[in-house]
Amino acid sequence: MVKVGIVGGTGYTGVELLRLLAQHPAVELRAITSRMDAGKRVSDVFPSLRRHIDLEFEEPATAVLKECDLVFFATPNGVAMRHAPELLESGVRVIDLAADFRITDASEWEKWYGMPHDCPEWLEKAVYGLPEFNRPEIRNARLIANPGCYPTAVSLGFFPLLQAKVIDASCLIADAKSGVSGAGRKAEISALFSEASENFKAYGVSGHRHFPEIRQNLAKMAGTDTGLVFVPHLTPMIRGIHATLYARITSEADFQAIYENFYEYEPFVDIMPAGSHPETRSVRAANLCRIAVHRPQGGNTLVILSVIDNLLKGAAGQAVQNMNIMLGLPETEGLCQFPLLP
Amino acid sequence: MVKVGIVGGTGYTGVELLRLLAQHPAVELRAITSRMDAGKRVSDVFPSLRRHIDLEFEEPATAVLKECDLVFFATPNGVAMRHAPELLESGVRVIDLAADFRITDASEWEKWYGMPHDCPEWLEKAVYGLPEFNRPEIRNARLIANPGCYPTAVSLGFFPLLQAKVIDASCLIADAKSGVSGAGRKAEISALFSEASENFKAYGVSGHRHFPEIRQNLAKMAGTDTGLVFVPHLTPMIRGIHATLYARITSEADFQAIYENFYEYEPFVDIMPAGSHPETRSVRAANLCRIAVHRPQGGNTLVILSVIDNLLKGAAGQAVQNMNIMLGLPETEGLCQFPLLP
Amino acid sequence: MVKVGIVGGTGYTGVELLRLLAQHPAVELRAITSRMDAGKRVSDVFPSLRRHIDLEFEEPATAVLKECDLVFFATPNGVAMRHAPELLESGVRVIDLAADFRITDASEWEKWYGMPHDCPEWLEKAVYGLPEFNRPEIRNARLIANPGCYPTAVSLGFFPLLQAKVIDASCLIADAKSGVSGAGRKAEISALFSEASENFKAYGVSGHRHFPEIRQNLAKMAGTDTGLVFVPHLTPMIRGIHATLYARITSEADFQAIYENFYEYEPFVDIMPAGSHPETRSVRAANLCRIAVHRPQGGNTLVILSVIDNLLKGAAGQAVQNMNIMLGLPETEGLCQFPLLP
Amino acid sequence: MVKVGIVGGTGYTGVELLRLLAQHPAVELRAITSRMDAGKRVSDVFPSLRRHIDLEFEEPATAVLKECDLVFFATPNGVAMRHAPELLESGVRVIDLAADFRITDASEWEKWYGMPHDCPEWLEKAVYGLPEFNRPEIRNARLIANPGCYPTAVSLGFFPLLQAKVIDASCLIADAKSGVSGAGRKAEISALFSEASENFKAYGVSGHRHFPEIRQNLAKMAGTDTGLVFVPHLTPMIRGIHATLYARITSEADFQAIYENFYEYEPFVDIMPAGSHPETRSVRAANLCRIAVHRPQGGNTLVILSVIDNLLKGAAGQAVQNMNIMLGLPETEGLCQFPLLP
Repeated sequence: MVKVGIVGGTGYTGVELLRLLAQHPAVELRAITSRMDAGKRVSDVFPSLRRHIDLEFEEPATAVLKECDLVFFATPNGVAMRHAPELLESGVRVIDLAADFRITDASEWEKWYGMPHDCPEWLEKAVYGLPEFNRPEIRNARLIANPGCYPTAVSLGFFPLLQAKVIDASCLIADAKSGVSGAGRKAEISALFSEASENFKAYGVSGHRHFPEIRQNLAKMAGTDTGLVFVPHLTPMIRGIHATLYARITSEADFQAIYENFYEYEPFVDIMPAGSHPETRSVRAANLCRIAVHRPQGGNTLVILSVIDNLLKGAAGQAVQNMNIMLGLPETEGLCQFPLLP
Repeated sequence: MVKVGIVGGTGYTGVELLRLLAQHPAVELRAITSRMDAGKRVSDVFPSLRRHIDLEFEEPATAVLKECDLVFFATPNGVAMRHAPELLESGVRVIDLAADFRITDASEWEKWYGMPHDCPEWLEKAVYGLPEFNRPEIRNARLIANPGCYPTAVSLGFFPLLQAKVIDASCLIADAKSGVSGAGRKAEISALFSEASENFKAYGVSGHRHFPEIRQNLAKMAGTDTGLVFVPHLTPMIRGIHATLYARITSEADFQAIYENFYEYEPFVDIMPAGSHPETRSVRAANLCRIAVHRPQGGNTLVILSVIDNLLKGAAGQAVQNMNIMLGLPETEGLCQFPLLP
Repeated sequence: MVKVGIVGGTGYTGVELLRLLAQHPAVELRAITSRMDAGKRVSDVFPSLRRHIDLEFEEPATAVLKECDLVFFATPNGVAMRHAPELLESGVRVIDLAADFRITDASEWEKWYGMPHDCPEWLEKAVYGLPEFNRPEIRNARLIANPGCYPTAVSLGFFPLLQAKVIDASCLIADAKSGVSGAGRKAEISALFSEASENFKAYGVSGHRHFPEIRQNLAKMAGTDTGLVFVPHLTPMIRGIHATLYARITSEADFQAIYENFYEYEPFVDIMPAGSHPETRSVRAANLCRIAVHRPQGGNTLVILSVIDNLLKGAAGQAVQNMNIMLGLPETEGLCQFPLLP
Repeated sequence: MVKVGIVGGTGYTGVELLRLLAQHPAVELRAITSRMDAGKRVSDVFPSLRRHIDLEFEEPATAVLKECDLVFFATPNGVAMRHAPELLESGVRVIDLAADFRITDASEWEKWYGMPHDCPEWLEKAVYGLPEFNRPEIRNARLIANPGCYPTAVSLGFFPLLQAKVIDASCLIADAKSGVSGAGRKAEISALFSEASENFKAYGVSGHRHFPEIRQNLAKMAGTDTGLVFVPHLTPMIRGIHATLYARITSEADFQAIYENFYEYEPFVDIMPAGSHPETRSVRAANLCRIAVHRPQGGNTLVILSVIDNLLKGAAGQAVQNMNIMLGLPETEGLCQFPLLP
């Protein structure tokens, strides 16, 4: 059994990690920390886990964590870069679900996240954990930067076209819509039910923190800088991201086949039949990205629809997938939950 | 492996049965029928099941069904009573998720369901499938009447008090609230998003079909007729039932202990600590009833809060629980899904 | 034109007051205060009011408010009792939408609200502002305690039966359901979209602050103490309260007629035809209470359904109604908005 | 007083028309027809209108309608083209809220709407009713084709740029999101609460009926054919459209000023300050389009955000606006409702 710890388990990615790990046949959950809720039973904070998880939240004393094989950081940005190094140096593997190690350029990171980076030496060693893109590196990683939710949906949607070099990479558009849980379990007025229900809005049009992360992913795949416009929106549902992607065709090809071939052996990407409209609920509660390829009216613009559950393939599910790869477990172990519909 | 069939698989209880049975380690799903969608792949009707279920909906020709060990009817009221007898006589066990065999008095059934009962001889042999009440009978049953969603939540909430004979059984009140999926996957204006969202209403106050079913359950437990007022309401969410139950105390007792003792060995009923407010989401997607006992201001009225997921413990989950019992499988097999939160 | 001010205009009752007063033909809106948002334009905080309201939030300096004929306090509990007296002594009429002056017994108030009462002398002079109950006193009031949302829905529902003395006032039950805006525009985790959506729960079963207020209202109408069980619930919608009331019949009567006669001349209470199920959306955005009377199966329990919009008849609408009465304006002036459906 | 009739008043545009017209100071509502609900009181079908509208639905016998000055058709596509001509020839003005007269090319209409056009002679005389584009023609029109909801939001968003000729009109992208009421008050499974809630999806990517209508509008404004990709999405809310528009800059200009100047005198279009993110709820229940102009990272793509309430500026509100213009009434009469927030 693999010994696993979680730092910061009281947010939505934390409770989702708990749900996945407690059902994972190869995992023994050893410790979960929370400054705010230390001393409380996990099942008192999350009654959904009563009878399933018999742990208390603890102060983030690293002692217990150092006995783990792998520790997940489900903390706000800026925490893992301060506390992960000690664990890493003790030989513990780390997966950070926040953004601390996602942007390889420290000064770019500091610009978008508004704080100095405490740990540039590990920034270089960190591996971006998008298995469909760089599975071999993940296998040998000690520190994983688990991708953001928008970057996962958008990058998986654009990758096949960029690799095939059949579109104009200088004018990509990603119009993305997220459920409210993407904002986290934080007491903020804008995420109140009475503010977010019966409402739809764009936000961060002038610049969202996932923009440099997406651009970095696309550039790596394209082998060159790309031109990207990224517009995130908030939609009144709890879970789900729907990315609608636009790209101009530069070379004719069988675009459906490009996608089917690219993801042929991927357990967690499903290319839908041509003409499909994947719904976010078709991946709800599952570690899965579904993609459909459209070419409206046979014009010169491709429209790619890409959906994930932001808490699964966009966060905790992908983190467990990365853990499986790092630890040599079957990649799909503990991740076979069916989507929940309705 | 147990061979299982489903008649009428395109409603919400049908798709939930599919989700549970396809993940059940002891079950081989052999056939699923649908008049409306015969010939279509299950995964085309329910894309959430792509990659998981590789069956087509078939015409309800009984041939294939007769090879099954057990067949679920997830059909509208009135179908099972016409088609189950042939299967039963061939030795196939049947669980009806509709109401055809729930009311033991045929004339009472006919009054509430507005049609003649086609199959009174099986009505007598049918066993009401509420394991916490009559598990031994279920073990030997050939035909199970799977309880309604409201009756499950209300009956489990009142049983301990009725058995303990500490309340006035002549004036019970059940104020129940249901999510919209309880209305089924039928094209009706009243269940449209634009009608049911941002709205709350009572319905069927003068008489709901679950009223005689609840009254029958309570009478069996109390050993006498009870006086019941039952008011169902529609609340703008997909899944969940919350029953708020009111009863007047006739004998002082440790009411919390009565509940804890009554359900001590039940895997699917969770008595919450005193003072709790169970949320419907704490049982979402799980076969579980959570109950809390209150006595406001130390007065002479008990308030019992009982929550279930109407599609799980209120329908498909309870049906699988009944199947496990009937077939001698471990009762919890295939039913260990964690609740999904948020 | 009547000169009006608002203290504390950034909550949901505040923005609703703004909407109503800005459209009121006899009102000139002179000042609106907010400590938090002082200096900001009202229309920047609430873009829905762009082009309609050309005011800035100001520091609550009483100078401007003293020039008003009437000032509304849409502040948290405990603010009006500290700041209203100075205005009252300057001859300004005051309507407090919070709870400071609702409970006539100061020690009872202190018990439920957990702070000493700063202003017991005005507590005695305050008039509870439920026009259907005590319109004559409102006409002469200088200080109005605007009723709570639950108390309005529940009291209007029980009044006719208590006056007619046809029910057992010792065992009244009020099972009430509220939309999330009732929790206010405060950053609290429990009111987040991801917590409150797709969920239903009871809360405060052991004691809610509206309990003593309702009990006080019912006692005044009954002329004696009543026995009340009050269970509030949170339902996933923004606006609306649905109260389901239960009472045992002690004298036979034409209950429908009792309600129709009691509210015959009331502009803002609508008795629905027998057998109706009033929906909360049928009063959305309108200052209106709709009530239906049921007697299920002709038994000895009456079921009364009472719906309001918690922000209108449950708060800002009723406050404007009180203002109209106090200032001798037509009672319905500025309150003729139609409900918004869908 | 202007005598007005409504044909087909039981859908969402119908009930919204009723709400607006019953409050319109210059309108006398004479007749409302519905085949399905003939004989029922309007207030029984829509309890929100109790005490406000004292009419019955009638059979669509043209007799009463011919006495009207103006008749609205709030009917399914294909009805107005069959029944409006008789009224028009009697001198009654007609506003069709369906699509029968929106596409000027009959064969194009027949291709998208799948039926022969019954009334090509009136198709030529019909005026497209988008006041911000062609107010003078509306003034003299006898028959108005009231625009679709998507076309209104998208066209108002693109018009200023097309007139200013500062963008590449050959590659416009409109990514639009609609609330569920846009699907109408029809019993369809896809619009059920349990299907549309907690879900987000694109639909009609290969071709939506509003596509040719938008293209026609854009071509008229640009003076040439444009290249348009239009992707509609369904978002889980009742009301609201959010169009996110993308255009490539061909000439530098003060884009904010272009919008402010274009709509300077428009009562129902509000250009938000630079950097704004208009929310759909900021126009809920109001006849208003709010627009914001963005240029992310100073790149060469403009992002225009345009929001309307699909039932107001996208249907009934715009219809009343057209009526006011046609009949020489003040354009804003009866349309001054404030948006409803929260």
